[in-house]
Amino acid sequence: MSTPASAPFSVDAADPRVEALTRLLADTAVARDREGGHAATERQAIRESGLLKLAIPQALGGEGASWSRTLDAVRRLATVDSALAHVFAFHHLQVATVLRYGNAEQQSRLLGDTASRGWFWGNALNPLDKRCAAQAVPGGFSFHGDKSFCSGALGSDMLIVSAWHAESQSLVIAAVPSAREGVELRADWDAFGQRQTDSGSVRFEHVFVPDADVLQTPGAAPSVATTARALLAQLILVNLYLGIAQGALAEALRYLREEARPWSASGVTRAADDPYAQQRAGELHLLVRPAELLADFAAATVDTAFAQGPALTTQARGEAAIRVAEAKALAHKAALEVGNRMFDLMGARASSGRFGYDRFWRNARVHTLHDPLDYKIRDIGRHVIDGTLPEPGPYS
Amino acid sequence: MSTPASAPFSVDAADPRVEALTRLLADTAVARDREGGHAATERQAIRESGLLKLAIPQALGGEGASWSRTLDAVRRLATVDSALAHVFAFHHLQVATVLRYGNAEQQSRLLGDTASRGWFWGNALNPLDKRCAAQAVPGGFSFHGDKSFCSGALGSDMLIVSAWHAESQSLVIAAVPSAREGVELRADWDAFGQRQTDSGSVRFEHVFVPDADVLQTPGAAPSVATTARALLAQLILVNLYLGIAQGALAEALRYLREEARPWSASGVTRAADDPYAQQRAGELHLLVRPAELLADFAAATVDTAFAQGPALTTQARGEAAIRVAEAKALAHKAALEVGNRMFDLMGARASSGRFGYDRFWRNARVHTLHDPLDYKIRDIGRHVIDGTLPEPGPYS
Amino acid sequence: MSTPASAPFSVDAADPRVEALTRLLADTAVARDREGGHAATERQAIRESGLLKLAIPQALGGEGASWSRTLDAVRRLATVDSALAHVFAFHHLQVATVLRYGNAEQQSRLLGDTASRGWFWGNALNPLDKRCAAQAVPGGFSFHGDKSFCSGALGSDMLIVSAWHAESQSLVIAAVPSAREGVELRADWDAFGQRQTDSGSVRFEHVFVPDADVLQTPGAAPSVATTARALLAQLILVNLYLGIAQGALAEALRYLREEARPWSASGVTRAADDPYAQQRAGELHLLVRPAELLADFAAATVDTAFAQGPALTTQARGEAAIRVAEAKALAHKAALEVGNRMFDLMGARASSGRFGYDRFWRNARVHTLHDPLDYKIRDIGRHVIDGTLPEPGPYS
Amino acid sequence: MSTPASAPFSVDAADPRVEALTRLLADTAVARDREGGHAATERQAIRESGLLKLAIPQALGGEGASWSRTLDAVRRLATVDSALAHVFAFHHLQVATVLRYGNAEQQSRLLGDTASRGWFWGNALNPLDKRCAAQAVPGGFSFHGDKSFCSGALGSDMLIVSAWHAESQSLVIAAVPSAREGVELRADWDAFGQRQTDSGSVRFEHVFVPDADVLQTPGAAPSVATTARALLAQLILVNLYLGIAQGALAEALRYLREEARPWSASGVTRAADDPYAQQRAGELHLLVRPAELLADFAAATVDTAFAQGPALTTQARGEAAIRVAEAKALAHKAALEVGNRMFDLMGARASSGRFGYDRFWRNARVHTLHDPLDYKIRDIGRHVIDGTLPEPGPYS
Repeated sequence: MSTPASAPFSVDAADPRVEALTRLLADTAVARDREGGHAATERQAIRESGLLKLAIPQALGGEGASWSRTLDAVRRLATVDSALAHVFAFHHLQVATVLRYGNAEQQSRLLGDTASRGWFWGNALNPLDKRCAAQAVPGGFSFHGDKSFCSGALGSDMLIVSAWHAESQSLVIAAVPSAREGVELRADWDAFGQRQTDSGSVRFEHVFVPDADVLQTPGAAPSVATTARALLAQLILVNLYLGIAQGALAEALRYLREEARPWSASGVTRAADDPYAQQRAGELHLLVRPAELLADFAAATVDTAFAQGPALTTQARGEAAIRVAEAKALAHKAALEVGNRMFDLMGARASSGRFGYDRFWRNARVHTLHDPLDYKIRDIGRHVIDGTLPEPGPYS
Repeated sequence: MSTPASAPFSVDAADPRVEALTRLLADTAVARDREGGHAATERQAIRESGLLKLAIPQALGGEGASWSRTLDAVRRLATVDSALAHVFAFHHLQVATVLRYGNAEQQSRLLGDTASRGWFWGNALNPLDKRCAAQAVPGGFSFHGDKSFCSGALGSDMLIVSAWHAESQSLVIAAVPSAREGVELRADWDAFGQRQTDSGSVRFEHVFVPDADVLQTPGAAPSVATTARALLAQLILVNLYLGIAQGALAEALRYLREEARPWSASGVTRAADDPYAQQRAGELHLLVRPAELLADFAAATVDTAFAQGPALTTQARGEAAIRVAEAKALAHKAALEVGNRMFDLMGARASSGRFGYDRFWRNARVHTLHDPLDYKIRDIGRHVIDGTLPEPGPYS
Repeated sequence: MSTPASAPFSVDAADPRVEALTRLLADTAVARDREGGHAATERQAIRESGLLKLAIPQALGGEGASWSRTLDAVRRLATVDSALAHVFAFHHLQVATVLRYGNAEQQSRLLGDTASRGWFWGNALNPLDKRCAAQAVPGGFSFHGDKSFCSGALGSDMLIVSAWHAESQSLVIAAVPSAREGVELRADWDAFGQRQTDSGSVRFEHVFVPDADVLQTPGAAPSVATTARALLAQLILVNLYLGIAQGALAEALRYLREEARPWSASGVTRAADDPYAQQRAGELHLLVRPAELLADFAAATVDTAFAQGPALTTQARGEAAIRVAEAKALAHKAALEVGNRMFDLMGARASSGRFGYDRFWRNARVHTLHDPLDYKIRDIGRHVIDGTLPEPGPYS
Repeated sequence: MSTPASAPFSVDAADPRVEALTRLLADTAVARDREGGHAATERQAIRESGLLKLAIPQALGGEGASWSRTLDAVRRLATVDSALAHVFAFHHLQVATVLRYGNAEQQSRLLGDTASRGWFWGNALNPLDKRCAAQAVPGGFSFHGDKSFCSGALGSDMLIVSAWHAESQSLVIAAVPSAREGVELRADWDAFGQRQTDSGSVRFEHVFVPDADVLQTPGAAPSVATTARALLAQLILVNLYLGIAQGALAEALRYLREEARPWSASGVTRAADDPYAQQRAGELHLLVRPAELLADFAAATVDTAFAQGPALTTQARGEAAIRVAEAKALAHKAALEVGNRMFDLMGARASSGRFGYDRFWRNARVHTLHDPLDYKIRDIGRHVIDGTLPEPGPYS
């Protein structure tokens, strides 16, 4: 199966590295989805593309791309492989975490090394999972316990880790080298979609974390600027969902044009001339297209919010959160619906396993369970009723 | 009933004339919807606002506003009174017709007079209705026969009229003073919504039309630039539908905040705290918000297309038509759904006739029958399947 | 406009009185909807049909029809006039109230007179409206205060009234002659739909109610059998909604067959051959048809529950309530959607006021606000999750 | 994973063999879906259950069960394993084919042997696939060529085969022992759902078919009674889809009750108390419940139609086809939607591969591609518009 040739959407087509990576991932996406597990070769290709330093400030050796542009790359990759796109995106989320939480020295050192050495970051910041405990020890902390849903941890060079500090009833957040003694990265991710996201668990066995690598100390009140990390995390999901929807629709339209057979009762000789197929194609496009506009609009809003730095106000953060929530609701629905209904354009023969077309729905279904849509819509409802802003938290 | 105080949408709030007119229309909208008929007072207020020359080029005495800006005014008015907003919008459509079809002299004379004398234009260009016949007579044509669905004709100063020229099997299009001998404007519009659009029939009784006022002569091949009139006509509908949806949602949210009672089984003391009300509010917003972004995007595309003038290509026209069709599909659905489901936010007491809240659905339902959505979606489907452009015509 | 000739639904066609009444109501339904107010002539025709004694036991001079059969008549009338069908149905609800709450003497006297004298009952039992107070006086109670939403009260012979007894914090329920001194029936119902339901307010000015007419005394614990009245009340709504949906669809199909014009882009010469019109017709039928089966199933369940008399268990009552709720959810959606989308089968000309086709949506929209669907669906959800039964109350 | 303990639906619980088989299939359904391929052990268990002779007339050694009762068993099995349920159902479809097409001798011999020897029948009757040719040879026909989508062929004892007879431009239909020389059953079914239906291709290499086993000779005009086979085929799909929907919902509700965690923003301590979870549960039930009633109604109609034998009229056949189409539309939608949205009740942890919950959607998605829903809905639309009956064919 080749890369969808004619996606009717504006994507970051200008960056040949993104396009090359998209083609490379497309070539093996169906086979790798079937196998699951860790995509070492493809993660190496991502490293070599240079795109891991896309969002790192130029002063630190990166490209200084906006989040909009970075997310365009995420979206484009997700049209063919939303699992690797997720790993790619979550690397950038950790970069953003260092930028949001780290001091100047930490930013300079950690991101400088990322740019120069090609580090790949993984995620072990899952605030709802408090099993990993932080204990103060001389010169730093000791982290001990398990973390689940650690996307991209396996195969990473560095981790962002949250640990629960019982005394202060708050989180410690730190950067931890993946290879540090006591860190065990487990290949135990077994979801039925997003199979190569390396989202298994990590075991921390009395891992020493020096003060220099602590990004948030116990009891530190989160600033508006740091809580904005959640907006970027959510916006990554928006673009992953959207990429899935775009990729699924592009494939279904290609199949309709090139391979589908007209139904016996349709009276047409070309499947693409079937009036109901045309209608269904139009309907699916009308799910994807608005999601795209809202995603772009939300990304621009987040760019603006992030540009405020520490001056970001609660109001501006909250309004940006609503923009992201709007985009997420539409992208969520588009990904699930297109993944589900794309088959109505293609017919029974498209269910053959060799096409792997069910992966769009499976990837969308697993990933859209990240946090429940109903509470996103509730937040939007509260906002339009009387201006209530979503409560800052890990998901809003 | 007051103007919705806090519409959460970007509207042309910068123009105080539009805001003043919106308030004025809102004051009597419920009562006038009940009465139906011709809104002489309000149409006079529109005249006096100066907004009828909004889209006329500055060189001809107008304000030279873009279609985007003009449509923002249409949308804003439609939030409280989509019937008068329609009459207002269709005036501008006739202005556009003179600009698209007229020669320099005609533009200068007809639009110059419109700007200086405050002319209000009505529509009698309905290409599917061929009952009005054009016959060549010395110095011009004689128009004879009936036209239906002539929005804004009653109460107008000037009409754009199409008449069927049998010899050439084509349309003659001309500007005709509404008071000319033989023109009979009938108050026979009786639809259950959009009641004050003055969309009745016009009888032409051997009406003489001098050559100087003929905008399109028999047999003239329509250029790409003239067929673009249909894009503006469709985009007007988009903004009317969208305004209805915005106005309905704003009213429902206001009522929910200020008047609604909590349901006995809800366990909350304020209707606005009901989890299902919050959800429904969020859902309705998620119908309106994407429609707004698509409408803005389509308007920008049409601005660009119109700026091409005679250089507009078939491809650019077709792509603009698809952008407009996308926006129309979403605005259509938003207007009908919000008009229908707004009551779920308000409860039984909101069905009292004194609120007139059913007018949103009635207006939306009547106006969305203008041309069928299914063929719009089919056109979009054909386009995304293989790039087919909609066939230029009165509705696409 | 004639009675829909070929409704594709099973209705109580066997009863020629129902059919005759349906035809009679159909003849003037559009005009009367426009006028609103009290339909004295038609209510007299209902009286003269003899159908007001349909559900009264044969021993008391009635026909002893099952609730299923009685509701079939309600549903049939509602296909053409859901307002009068509501008044008709609420008469039977009051009959059921006497049967459920009254003692043998009360049943014999009140229903015997209803059968022999052709009494028409109206409703003033609205438990959420506690403004009407009951005070014990020698030989009975004095009722004083207002009641709203009193369907069928205007023009009735007898009322079922609830009044709030402050001392016992409970309701008194009684039968009260509509002409009794102190009872003022107000023609103040002004909703935008169900206009001739005479659902205005009633003023009770120190109205004396003798003990003999008290059906529920203060502090009497409601039995399972009396709380089952709510099931019948809800089932009436089901059949009214369903009748609206059936009537709207039948009209739209008739118009499509006989009057609609094919769309210019459709390529067909008969509107009924348009592939999208056929699809939309099928979709609307698929909203109506399941609602019909569920309504019939729910009615059979309620027949069984009512046949239990005082032996009705909480469990059986609760399960019947769920069956009714299921039917109500589908009938609610069918009525609103068919009332809304029927126009897509018919086109712009069907919006003419002379057809009055908007009345289906208006009637459906007003009546479906009776109690909120979201809490019905929640009750169903709770039941399927773990068997929770709806809490007995006025709406469940 | 255990059998869903409390499916809130009426199923053929009376037959302990069906229940035992359901439990047996449930034990390994997730593992076998993962492996795919041929379920030899389970097909042997089906043989041993005795249920393969359920629908064979008692006079021929069977149980003489109605199709309704037989389909209840299909539906029940499909709640846990829709692939094996399909193989089971298609066996019965072949039994019906012998009953519809065979003469008395053929029925007696072929079904007598089926009852006494426990034969399992597979399907190679695919009228749209004309690659297998029939050529007259002395004493019978020679079948040569390929057939695709041959459900249950692999592992079967007998096949019903259609072959294209070019001279008469018609089909020959015959019973063929699966082990006959020249018959090659291929294990090449690779769809992403319904994985163990053994629906691969069959190669016929000059297979001799004696006249005695020919059920339909070339050029024989199909009678109404034989074309009714398609109704049963479609009704089997209805019950498979419905079983999937029931099974998926039952599992989701069980998980919600027993395993799901409340969302952090929900404010409840038990996931089952979340107002949105309750709503979603109610909504999903409202997709399943009507489908169940329509399926039962359609089955009763088909029972009646089949009981007519050769006296079945075109009209009665057509109306039964509409009943089946109605049920199919609802069951189709229920299966896909519940398979998709069940996860909204369960949350992210339910995506673990060990639950195998994605199989409901995968099975539903593959199986609902059997023939397109849009043409079913069109047929229903045509019928309600003017009584048009579906054209008898392999799918209607």
